[in-house]
Amino acid sequence: MVLALVELIPIPTPLIKPGEDLVDVLLKTMRSLNLEFKDGDVLAIADKAVAVSKGSIVNLKDVIPSQKALTLSKRCGLEPAFVEVVLKEADAILGYVERAILTLKASILVANAGVDRKNAPAGTVTLWLKDPDEAAREIKRKLEAETGKRLAVLLVDSRVNPLRMGTTGFTLGLAGFKPVEDCRGQLDLYGKPLLITRINIADDLAAAAHLLMGEGANMVPAVIIRGAPIELNENYTSKNLLINPKECLYVKGFKRLSDVQF
Amino acid sequence: MVLALVELIPIPTPLIKPGEDLVDVLLKTMRSLNLEFKDGDVLAIADKAVAVSKGSIVNLKDVIPSQKALTLSKRCGLEPAFVEVVLKEADAILGYVERAILTLKASILVANAGVDRKNAPAGTVTLWLKDPDEAAREIKRKLEAETGKRLAVLLVDSRVNPLRMGTTGFTLGLAGFKPVEDCRGQLDLYGKPLLITRINIADDLAAAAHLLMGEGANMVPAVIIRGAPIELNENYTSKNLLINPKECLYVKGFKRLSDVQF
Repeated sequence: MVLALVELIPIPTPLIKPGEDLVDVLLKTMRSLNLEFKDGDVLAIADKAVAVSKGSIVNLKDVIPSQKALTLSKRCGLEPAFVEVVLKEADAILGYVERAILTLKASILVANAGVDRKNAPAGTVTLWLKDPDEAAREIKRKLEAETGKRLAVLLVDSRVNPLRMGTTGFTLGLAGFKPVEDCRGQLDLYGKPLLITRINIADDLAAAAHLLMGEGANMVPAVIIRGAPIELNENYTSKNLLINPKECLYVKGFKRLSDVQF
Repeated sequence: MVLALVELIPIPTPLIKPGEDLVDVLLKTMRSLNLEFKDGDVLAIADKAVAVSKGSIVNLKDVIPSQKALTLSKRCGLEPAFVEVVLKEADAILGYVERAILTLKASILVANAGVDRKNAPAGTVTLWLKDPDEAAREIKRKLEAETGKRLAVLLVDSRVNPLRMGTTGFTLGLAGFKPVEDCRGQLDLYGKPLLITRINIADDLAAAAHLLMGEGANMVPAVIIRGAPIELNENYTSKNLLINPKECLYVKGFKRLSDVQF
Protein backbone atom coordinates (compact mmCIF):
# COMPACT_ATOMS: atom_id res chain seq x y z
CA MET A 1 0.00 0.00 0.00
CA VAL A 2 1.29 3.42 -0.91
CA LEU A 3 0.94 6.06 1.79
CA ALA A 4 -0.49 9.36 0.65
CA LEU A 5 2.16 11.54 2.22
CA VAL A 6 1.67 15.28 2.47
CA GLU A 7 4.77 17.48 2.47
CA LEU A 8 5.10 21.05 3.71
CA ILE A 9 8.08 22.69 2.03
CA PRO A 10 9.09 26.13 3.33
CA ILE A 11 10.43 28.73 0.89
CA PRO A 12 12.69 31.07 2.86
CA THR A 13 13.20 34.22 0.80
CA PRO A 14 15.15 37.45 1.20
CA LEU A 15 13.10 40.30 2.70
CA ILE A 16 10.25 41.27 0.34
CA LYS A 17 10.23 45.02 -0.35
CA PRO A 18 7.40 47.26 -1.56
CA GLY A 19 7.15 47.11 -5.34
CA GLU A 20 9.01 43.83 -5.71
CA ASP A 21 7.44 41.07 -7.77
CA LEU A 22 6.74 38.34 -5.24
CA VAL A 23 6.45 35.60 -7.86
CA ASP A 24 9.86 36.48 -9.28
CA VAL A 25 11.40 36.38 -5.80
CA LEU A 26 9.78 33.02 -5.04
CA LEU A 27 10.82 31.41 -8.32
CA LYS A 28 14.39 32.73 -7.99
CA THR A 29 14.58 31.38 -4.43
CA MET A 30 13.19 28.02 -5.53
CA ARG A 31 15.76 27.76 -8.34
CA SER A 32 18.56 28.46 -5.86
CA LEU A 33 17.21 25.61 -3.71
CA ASN A 34 16.77 23.23 -6.67
CA LEU A 35 13.08 23.19 -5.87
CA GLU A 36 10.43 22.82 -8.56
CA PHE A 37 6.65 22.86 -8.49
CA LYS A 38 4.69 19.71 -9.26
CA ASP A 39 1.18 19.56 -10.65
CA GLY A 40 -1.35 19.83 -7.83
CA ASP A 41 0.92 21.72 -5.42
CA VAL A 42 -0.71 24.32 -3.21
CA LEU A 43 1.39 27.45 -2.79
CA ALA A 44 0.48 29.03 0.55
CA ILE A 45 1.67 32.66 0.80
CA ALA A 46 1.57 34.98 3.79
CA ASP A 47 -0.86 37.76 2.87
CA LYS A 48 1.56 40.14 4.59
CA ALA A 49 4.22 39.44 1.96
CA VAL A 50 1.71 40.07 -0.83
CA ALA A 51 0.50 43.27 0.86
CA VAL A 52 4.06 44.61 1.21
CA SER A 53 5.01 43.72 -2.36
CA LYS A 54 1.87 45.42 -3.67
CA GLY A 55 2.34 48.48 -1.49
CA SER A 56 -0.83 47.91 0.56
CA ILE A 57 0.78 50.01 3.28
CA VAL A 58 -0.07 53.16 5.22
CA ASN A 59 2.50 55.45 6.78
CA LEU A 60 1.17 56.24 10.26
CA LYS A 61 2.64 59.76 10.30
CA ASP A 62 0.31 60.64 7.41
CA VAL A 63 -2.77 59.70 9.47
CA ILE A 64 -4.74 62.28 11.47
CA PRO A 65 -6.70 60.52 14.23
CA SER A 66 -10.37 61.37 14.68
CA GLN A 67 -11.93 62.02 18.08
CA LYS A 68 -13.39 58.50 17.99
CA ALA A 69 -9.93 57.06 17.39
CA LEU A 70 -8.48 59.09 20.28
CA THR A 71 -11.15 57.78 22.65
CA LEU A 72 -10.79 54.13 21.61
CA SER A 73 -7.00 54.50 21.65
CA LYS A 74 -7.04 55.37 25.35
CA ARG A 75 -9.24 52.38 26.14
CA CYS A 76 -7.27 49.72 24.27
CA GLY A 77 -3.74 51.11 24.57
CA LEU A 78 -3.06 51.27 20.84
CA GLU A 79 -1.72 54.49 19.35
CA PRO A 80 -4.30 56.91 17.90
CA ALA A 81 -3.09 56.82 14.28
CA PHE A 82 -3.17 53.02 14.29
CA VAL A 83 -6.72 53.02 15.70
CA GLU A 84 -7.79 55.54 13.04
CA VAL A 85 -6.62 53.16 10.29
CA VAL A 86 -8.49 50.30 11.99
CA LEU A 87 -11.69 52.39 12.14
CA LYS A 88 -11.36 53.12 8.41
CA GLU A 89 -10.72 49.47 7.49
CA ALA A 90 -13.32 47.81 9.74
CA ASP A 91 -16.90 47.10 8.69
CA ALA A 92 -17.89 46.92 12.39
CA ILE A 93 -16.15 47.37 15.74
CA LEU A 94 -17.25 44.67 18.20
CA GLY A 95 -15.08 45.02 21.27
CA TYR A 96 -11.51 45.33 22.45
CA VAL A 97 -8.94 44.07 24.92
CA GLU A 98 -5.52 45.52 25.76
CA ARG A 99 -3.74 46.12 22.40
CA ALA A 100 -6.41 44.53 20.16
CA ILE A 101 -9.77 45.58 18.73
CA LEU A 102 -12.26 42.92 17.59
CA THR A 103 -13.63 43.81 14.18
CA LEU A 104 -15.74 42.44 11.40
CA LYS A 105 -14.02 42.94 8.03
CA ALA A 106 -15.14 41.32 4.77
CA SER A 107 -17.42 39.04 6.86
CA ILE A 108 -14.39 37.79 8.83
CA LEU A 109 -13.95 38.21 12.59
CA VAL A 110 -10.40 39.47 13.07
CA ALA A 111 -8.29 41.66 15.35
CA ASN A 112 -7.70 45.24 14.15
CA ALA A 113 -9.45 44.74 10.79
CA GLY A 114 -6.30 43.05 9.48
CA VAL A 115 -4.24 46.22 10.02
CA ASP A 116 -0.81 45.11 11.24
CA ARG A 117 2.43 46.76 12.26
CA LYS A 118 4.17 43.39 12.54
CA ASN A 119 6.60 42.76 9.66
CA ALA A 120 5.62 46.07 8.03
CA PRO A 121 8.40 48.55 7.17
CA ALA A 122 9.24 50.91 10.08
CA GLY A 123 6.58 53.55 10.74
CA THR A 124 4.02 51.79 8.56
CA VAL A 125 1.19 49.31 8.85
CA THR A 126 -0.01 46.83 6.26
CA LEU A 127 -3.64 46.59 5.18
CA TRP A 128 -5.48 43.57 3.82
CA LEU A 129 -5.59 43.62 0.04
CA LYS A 130 -8.85 44.92 -1.39
CA ASP A 131 -9.39 41.66 -3.30
CA PRO A 132 -7.33 38.80 -1.87
CA ASP A 133 -8.91 36.27 -4.25
CA GLU A 134 -7.88 38.31 -7.28
CA ALA A 135 -4.36 38.57 -5.83
CA ALA A 136 -4.31 34.76 -5.45
CA ARG A 137 -5.54 34.31 -9.03
CA GLU A 138 -2.90 36.74 -10.33
CA ILE A 139 -0.11 34.84 -8.55
CA LYS A 140 -1.48 31.54 -9.82
CA ARG A 141 -1.68 32.79 -13.42
CA LYS A 142 1.90 34.03 -13.37
CA LEU A 143 3.27 30.92 -11.63
CA GLU A 144 1.48 28.61 -14.05
CA ALA A 145 2.69 30.59 -17.05
CA GLU A 146 6.28 30.46 -15.80
CA THR A 147 6.33 26.83 -14.69
CA GLY A 148 3.80 25.01 -16.88
CA LYS A 149 2.37 23.31 -13.77
CA ARG A 150 -1.23 23.33 -12.57
CA LEU A 151 -1.29 24.88 -9.10
CA ALA A 152 -3.51 26.14 -6.31
CA VAL A 153 -2.77 29.33 -4.37
CA LEU A 154 -3.76 30.18 -0.80
CA LEU A 155 -3.30 33.57 0.92
CA VAL A 156 -2.73 32.96 4.63
CA ASP A 157 -3.24 35.28 7.55
CA SER A 158 -3.44 34.40 11.24
CA ARG A 159 -5.86 35.26 14.01
CA VAL A 160 -6.80 34.27 17.51
CA ASN A 161 -9.81 32.07 18.17
CA PRO A 162 -12.51 32.36 20.84
CA LEU A 163 -11.27 31.24 24.27
CA ARG A 164 -8.00 29.94 22.79
CA MET A 165 -4.46 31.17 23.42
CA GLY A 166 -2.44 32.20 20.39
CA THR A 167 -2.90 32.53 16.66
CA THR A 168 -3.66 29.94 14.00
CA GLY A 169 -3.57 30.30 10.23
CA PHE A 170 -6.71 30.98 8.22
CA THR A 171 -7.56 31.68 4.59
CA LEU A 172 -7.76 35.23 3.29
CA GLY A 173 -7.87 34.44 -0.42
CA LEU A 174 -7.56 31.45 -2.70
CA ALA A 175 -7.45 30.31 -6.30
CA GLY A 176 -7.56 27.03 -8.14
CA PHE A 177 -9.08 24.55 -5.68
CA LYS A 178 -12.29 23.59 -3.92
CA PRO A 179 -11.95 24.94 -0.38
CA VAL A 180 -14.79 23.11 1.38
CA GLU A 181 -15.55 19.41 1.16
CA ASP A 182 -19.25 18.76 1.61
CA CYS A 183 -19.48 15.40 3.37
CA ARG A 184 -23.26 15.38 3.68
CA GLY A 185 -24.54 12.05 2.42
CA GLN A 186 -21.16 10.33 2.73
CA LEU A 187 -21.19 7.27 4.97
CA ASP A 188 -19.29 7.09 8.23
CA LEU A 189 -17.25 4.11 9.45
CA TYR A 190 -20.46 2.28 10.38
CA GLY A 191 -22.35 3.07 7.19
CA LYS A 192 -24.49 5.87 8.64
CA PRO A 193 -24.88 8.96 6.43
CA LEU A 194 -23.29 12.21 7.60
CA LEU A 195 -25.99 14.84 8.03
CA ILE A 196 -24.33 18.22 8.43
CA THR A 197 -20.56 17.84 8.15
CA ARG A 198 -18.48 19.93 5.82
CA ILE A 199 -14.68 20.23 6.07
CA ASN A 200 -12.97 23.60 5.77
CA ILE A 201 -10.01 22.28 3.82
CA ALA A 202 -8.64 25.75 3.06
CA ASP A 203 -8.38 26.78 6.71
CA ASP A 204 -6.80 23.43 7.63
CA LEU A 205 -4.21 24.03 4.88
CA ALA A 206 -3.66 27.61 6.05
CA ALA A 207 -3.03 26.42 9.60
CA ALA A 208 -0.54 23.83 8.36
CA ALA A 209 1.35 26.50 6.39
CA HIS A 210 1.21 28.92 9.32
CA LEU A 211 3.23 26.41 11.38
CA LEU A 212 6.22 27.03 9.11
CA MET A 213 5.67 30.73 8.44
CA GLY A 214 5.78 31.77 12.08
CA GLU A 215 4.99 35.33 13.10
CA GLY A 216 8.38 37.00 13.51
CA ALA A 217 11.55 37.20 11.43
CA ASN A 218 11.25 33.66 10.12
CA MET A 219 11.61 34.88 6.53
CA VAL A 220 9.31 32.12 5.30
CA PRO A 221 6.60 33.98 3.37
CA ALA A 222 5.59 30.90 1.40
CA VAL A 223 5.12 27.16 1.88
CA ILE A 224 4.48 24.54 -0.79
CA ILE A 225 1.92 21.96 0.34
CA ARG A 226 2.46 18.85 -1.76
CA GLY A 227 0.14 15.86 -1.86
CA ALA A 228 -2.77 17.58 -0.11
CA PRO A 229 -6.18 15.94 -0.61
CA ILE A 230 -7.58 18.78 -2.70
CA GLU A 231 -9.62 19.00 -5.87
CA LEU A 232 -8.12 21.45 -8.38
CA ASN A 233 -10.98 23.63 -9.56
CA GLU A 234 -11.22 27.18 -10.85
CA ASN A 235 -14.74 27.90 -9.65
CA TYR A 236 -14.22 28.83 -6.01
CA THR A 237 -13.07 31.80 -3.98
CA SER A 238 -12.65 32.52 -0.28
CA LYS A 239 -16.30 33.63 -0.29
CA ASN A 240 -17.16 29.92 -0.30
CA LEU A 241 -15.67 29.76 3.21
CA LEU A 242 -18.30 32.11 4.59
CA ILE A 243 -21.51 30.88 6.17
CA ASN A 244 -24.82 32.69 6.31
CA PRO A 245 -24.71 34.25 9.81
CA LYS A 246 -28.24 32.98 10.41
CA GLU A 247 -26.88 29.43 10.04
CA CYS A 248 -23.75 30.10 12.11
CA LEU A 249 -23.67 28.12 15.35
CA TYR A 250 -21.90 30.92 17.19
CA VAL A 251 -23.88 34.00 16.23
CA LYS A 252 -26.95 33.17 18.31
CA GLY A 253 -24.78 31.94 21.16
CA PHE A 254 -22.60 35.03 21.34
CA LYS A 255 -25.09 37.07 23.30
CA ARG A 256 -25.58 34.30 25.80
CA LEU A 257 -21.82 33.74 26.19
CA SER A 258 -21.33 37.35 27.19
CA ASP A 259 -23.63 36.62 30.14
CA VAL A 260 -21.74 33.53 31.33
CA GLN A 261 -19.89 34.18 34.57
CA PHE A 262 -16.37 32.84 34.10
CA MET B 1 20.87 25.00 2.53
CA VAL B 2 18.78 22.20 3.90
CA LEU B 3 15.05 22.78 3.80
CA ALA B 4 13.20 21.99 6.99
CA LEU B 5 10.54 19.83 5.43
CA VAL B 6 7.49 18.79 7.43
CA GLU B 7 5.83 15.51 6.52
CA LEU B 8 2.29 14.39 7.32
CA ILE B 9 2.14 10.59 7.22
CA PRO B 10 -1.34 9.03 7.48
CA ILE B 11 -1.76 5.73 9.35
CA PRO B 12 -4.81 4.01 7.89
CA THR B 13 -5.92 1.30 10.32
CA PRO B 14 -8.66 -1.31 10.41
CA LEU B 15 -11.81 -0.18 12.23
CA ILE B 16 -11.08 0.44 15.93
CA LYS B 17 -13.52 -1.42 18.19
CA PRO B 18 -14.47 -0.76 21.81
CA GLY B 19 -11.94 -2.35 24.14
CA GLU B 20 -9.16 -2.62 21.56
CA ASP B 21 -5.74 -1.28 22.43
CA LEU B 22 -5.25 1.61 20.04
CA VAL B 23 -1.47 1.70 20.46
CA ASP B 24 -1.22 -1.99 19.55
CA VAL B 25 -3.36 -1.44 16.44
CA LEU B 26 -1.28 1.58 15.38
CA LEU B 27 2.07 -0.17 15.87
CA LYS B 28 0.86 -3.27 14.05
CA THR B 29 -0.38 -1.14 11.15
CA MET B 30 2.90 0.77 11.06
CA ARG B 31 4.92 -2.46 10.95
CA SER B 32 2.81 -3.70 8.03
CA LEU B 33 3.62 -0.44 6.23
CA ASN B 34 7.33 -0.57 7.11
CA LEU B 35 6.83 2.68 8.96
CA GLU B 36 8.83 3.56 12.08
CA PHE B 37 8.72 6.48 14.47
CA LYS B 38 11.63 8.91 14.63
CA ASP B 39 12.63 11.01 17.63
CA GLY B 40 10.59 14.23 17.68
CA ASP B 41 7.61 12.86 15.74
CA VAL B 42 4.18 14.13 16.74
CA LEU B 43 1.51 11.42 16.69
CA ALA B 44 -1.84 13.08 16.06
CA ILE B 45 -4.78 10.79 16.93
CA ALA B 46 -8.48 11.37 16.36
CA ASP B 47 -10.03 11.66 19.81
CA LYS B 48 -12.95 9.66 18.42
CA ALA B 49 -10.72 6.62 17.93
CA VAL B 50 -9.44 6.93 21.50
CA ALA B 51 -12.98 7.36 22.84
CA VAL B 52 -14.21 4.24 21.00
CA SER B 53 -11.24 2.13 22.09
CA LYS B 54 -11.72 3.20 25.70
CA GLY B 55 -15.47 2.64 25.60
CA SER B 56 -16.37 6.31 26.13
CA ILE B 57 -19.71 5.56 24.51
CA VAL B 58 -23.37 5.85 25.45
CA ASN B 59 -26.14 3.71 24.01
CA LEU B 60 -28.97 6.11 23.18
CA LYS B 61 -31.69 3.55 23.93
CA ASP B 62 -30.54 3.57 27.56
CA VAL B 63 -31.14 7.34 27.85
CA ILE B 64 -34.41 8.77 29.18
CA PRO B 65 -34.82 12.35 27.93
CA SER B 66 -35.79 15.03 30.44
CA GLN B 67 -38.47 17.63 29.75
CA LYS B 68 -35.71 20.16 29.01
CA ALA B 69 -34.20 17.80 26.44
CA LEU B 70 -37.62 17.26 24.81
CA THR B 71 -38.13 21.02 24.46
CA LEU B 72 -34.65 21.73 23.06
CA SER B 73 -34.94 18.68 20.81
CA LYS B 74 -37.98 20.18 19.07
CA ARG B 75 -36.19 23.48 18.53
CA CYS B 76 -32.95 22.14 17.08
CA GLY B 77 -34.18 19.01 15.31
CA LEU B 78 -31.94 16.59 17.19
CA GLU B 79 -33.45 13.50 18.79
CA PRO B 80 -34.40 13.78 22.48
CA ALA B 81 -32.01 11.12 23.81
CA PHE B 82 -29.09 12.75 21.99
CA VAL B 83 -30.01 16.15 23.42
CA GLU B 84 -30.24 14.65 26.91
CA VAL B 85 -26.65 13.39 26.64
CA VAL B 86 -25.55 16.83 25.42
CA LEU B 87 -27.26 18.50 28.39
CA LYS B 88 -25.45 16.13 30.77
CA GLU B 89 -22.05 16.68 29.13
CA ALA B 90 -22.21 20.46 28.64
CA ASP B 91 -21.00 22.99 31.20
CA ALA B 92 -23.24 25.62 29.55
CA ILE B 93 -25.72 25.74 26.66
CA LEU B 94 -25.21 28.91 24.59
CA GLY B 95 -27.46 28.58 21.56
CA TYR B 96 -28.42 26.30 18.73
CA VAL B 97 -29.03 26.06 15.01
CA GLU B 98 -30.66 23.25 13.03
CA ARG B 99 -28.97 20.00 14.18
CA ALA B 100 -26.32 21.59 16.43
CA ILE B 101 -26.24 23.06 19.95
CA LEU B 102 -23.46 25.49 20.90
CA THR B 103 -21.98 24.52 24.24
CA LEU B 104 -19.14 25.35 26.55
CA LYS B 105 -17.38 22.18 27.71
CA ALA B 106 -14.05 22.10 29.56
CA SER B 107 -13.65 25.80 28.65
CA ILE B 108 -13.94 24.96 24.94
CA LEU B 109 -16.65 26.28 22.63
CA VAL B 110 -17.91 23.28 20.69
CA ALA B 111 -21.05 21.87 19.08
CA ASN B 112 -23.04 19.35 21.15
CA ALA B 113 -20.50 19.27 24.03
CA GLY B 114 -18.37 16.90 21.95
CA VAL B 115 -21.12 14.26 21.86
CA ASP B 116 -21.03 12.68 18.41
CA ARG B 117 -22.93 10.04 16.56
CA LYS B 118 -20.50 10.20 13.62
CA ASN B 119 -18.18 7.19 13.46
CA ALA B 120 -19.67 5.80 16.66
CA PRO B 121 -21.05 2.21 16.62
CA ALA B 122 -24.69 2.02 15.52
CA GLY B 123 -27.17 3.30 18.11
CA THR B 124 -24.44 4.92 20.20
CA VAL B 125 -22.72 8.26 20.61
CA THR B 126 -19.16 8.93 21.70
CA LEU B 127 -18.30 11.30 24.55
CA TRP B 128 -15.13 13.28 25.05
CA LEU B 129 -12.76 11.51 27.41
CA LYS B 130 -12.86 12.77 30.97
CA ASP B 131 -9.14 13.62 30.83
CA PRO B 132 -7.84 13.89 27.26
CA ASP B 133 -4.38 15.00 28.44
CA GLU B 134 -4.00 11.89 30.60
CA ALA B 135 -5.12 9.79 27.61
CA ALA B 136 -2.43 11.48 25.50
CA ARG B 137 0.20 10.88 28.18
CA GLU B 138 -0.82 7.22 28.46
CA ILE B 139 -0.50 6.72 24.68
CA LYS B 140 2.85 8.51 24.70
CA ARG B 141 4.20 6.38 27.57
CA LYS B 142 3.23 3.15 25.87
CA LEU B 143 4.51 4.23 22.43
CA GLU B 144 7.84 5.37 23.86
CA ALA B 145 8.25 2.16 25.86
CA GLU B 146 7.56 0.06 22.75
CA THR B 147 9.65 2.06 20.29
CA GLY B 148 12.44 3.70 22.34
CA LYS B 149 11.74 7.01 20.56
CA ARG B 150 10.92 10.36 22.14
CA LEU B 151 7.51 11.46 20.87
CA ALA B 152 4.75 14.01 21.26
CA VAL B 153 1.05 13.07 21.19
CA LEU B 154 -1.88 15.22 20.14
CA LEU B 155 -5.58 14.32 20.47
CA VAL B 156 -7.48 15.94 17.61
CA ASP B 157 -11.14 16.81 17.34
CA SER B 158 -12.82 19.12 14.84
CA ARG B 159 -15.26 21.99 15.17
CA VAL B 160 -16.75 24.83 13.22
CA ASN B 161 -15.49 28.38 13.68
CA PRO B 162 -17.43 31.64 13.98
CA LEU B 163 -18.76 32.82 10.59
CA ARG B 164 -16.79 30.11 8.74
CA MET B 165 -18.14 27.21 6.70
CA GLY B 166 -16.98 23.75 7.72
CA THR B 167 -14.86 22.13 10.38
CA THR B 168 -11.16 22.49 11.16
CA GLY B 169 -9.02 20.42 13.52
CA PHE B 170 -8.27 21.57 17.06
CA THR B 171 -6.49 20.15 20.09
CA LEU B 172 -8.40 18.22 22.72
CA GLY B 173 -5.43 16.81 24.63
CA LEU B 174 -1.65 16.70 24.31
CA ALA B 175 1.52 15.32 25.82
CA GLY B 176 5.24 15.87 25.39
CA PHE B 177 5.55 19.25 23.67
CA LYS B 178 5.15 22.97 24.22
CA PRO B 179 1.84 23.87 22.56
CA VAL B 180 2.10 27.68 22.44
CA GLU B 181 5.09 29.69 21.24
CA ASP B 182 5.28 33.02 23.02
CA CYS B 183 6.73 35.45 20.48
CA ARG B 184 6.52 38.52 22.70
CA GLY B 185 9.89 40.26 22.65
CA GLN B 186 11.03 38.50 19.45
CA LEU B 187 11.97 40.89 16.64
CA ASP B 188 10.02 41.10 13.41
CA LEU B 189 11.54 41.36 9.93
CA TYR B 190 12.33 45.02 10.55
CA GLY B 191 13.78 44.59 14.03
CA LYS B 192 10.68 45.80 15.90
CA PRO B 193 9.72 43.76 18.97
CA LEU B 194 6.48 41.76 18.85
CA LEU B 195 4.16 42.96 21.60
CA ILE B 196 1.32 40.48 21.96
CA THR B 197 1.81 37.60 19.54
CA ARG B 198 1.70 33.99 20.59
CA ILE B 199 1.32 31.08 18.18
CA ASN B 200 -1.08 28.23 18.90
CA ILE B 201 1.21 25.53 17.51
CA ALA B 202 -0.95 22.69 18.80
CA ASP B 203 -4.09 23.84 16.96
CA ASP B 204 -2.09 24.46 13.76
CA LEU B 205 -0.79 20.87 14.04
CA ALA B 206 -4.28 19.56 14.75
CA ALA B 207 -5.63 21.29 11.65
CA ALA B 208 -2.83 19.84 9.52
CA ALA B 209 -3.62 16.32 10.80
CA HIS B 210 -7.36 16.86 10.33
CA LEU B 211 -6.73 17.36 6.59
CA LEU B 212 -5.75 13.69 6.32
CA MET B 213 -8.17 12.27 8.88
CA GLY B 214 -11.29 13.52 7.16
CA GLU B 215 -14.68 13.16 8.79
CA GLY B 216 -16.21 10.08 7.22
CA ALA B 217 -15.03 6.56 6.51
CA ASN B 218 -11.46 7.59 5.76
CA MET B 219 -10.12 5.08 8.27
CA VAL B 220 -7.21 7.36 9.11
CA PRO B 221 -7.42 7.73 12.90
CA ALA B 222 -3.79 8.82 13.21
CA VAL B 223 -1.23 10.95 11.39
CA ILE B 224 2.49 11.22 12.10
CA ILE B 225 3.73 14.80 11.80
CA ARG B 226 7.48 14.64 11.18
CA GLY B 227 9.83 17.61 11.25
CA ALA B 228 7.37 20.00 12.92
CA PRO B 229 8.94 23.05 14.59
CA ILE B 230 8.08 21.93 18.12
CA GLU B 231 9.94 21.85 21.41
CA LEU B 232 9.66 18.48 23.14
CA ASN B 233 8.72 19.22 26.74
CA GLU B 234 6.83 17.29 29.42
CA ASN B 235 5.49 20.30 31.31
CA TYR B 236 2.44 21.27 29.25
CA THR B 237 -1.13 20.16 28.77
CA SER B 238 -4.05 21.35 26.66
CA LYS B 239 -4.92 23.69 29.55
CA ASN B 240 -2.06 25.88 28.28
CA LEU B 241 -4.18 26.51 25.16
CA LEU B 242 -6.88 28.24 27.18
CA ILE B 243 -6.96 31.99 27.69
CA ASN B 244 -8.45 33.85 30.63
CA PRO B 245 -11.90 34.82 29.25
CA LYS B 246 -11.33 38.36 30.51
CA GLU B 247 -8.35 38.61 28.12
CA CYS B 248 -10.18 36.93 25.22
CA LEU B 249 -10.71 39.27 22.29
CA TYR B 250 -14.05 37.67 21.47
CA VAL B 251 -15.80 37.45 24.81
CA LYS B 252 -16.51 41.16 25.12
CA GLY B 253 -17.35 41.41 21.44
CA PHE B 254 -19.83 38.55 21.43
CA LYS B 255 -22.66 40.58 22.84
CA ARG B 256 -22.12 43.31 20.28
CA LEU B 257 -21.95 40.82 17.41
CA SER B 258 -25.35 39.46 18.28
CA ASP B 259 -26.68 42.97 17.62
CA VAL B 260 -25.07 43.34 14.18
CA GLN B 261 -27.63 43.25 11.41
CA PHE B 262 -26.31 40.83 8.81
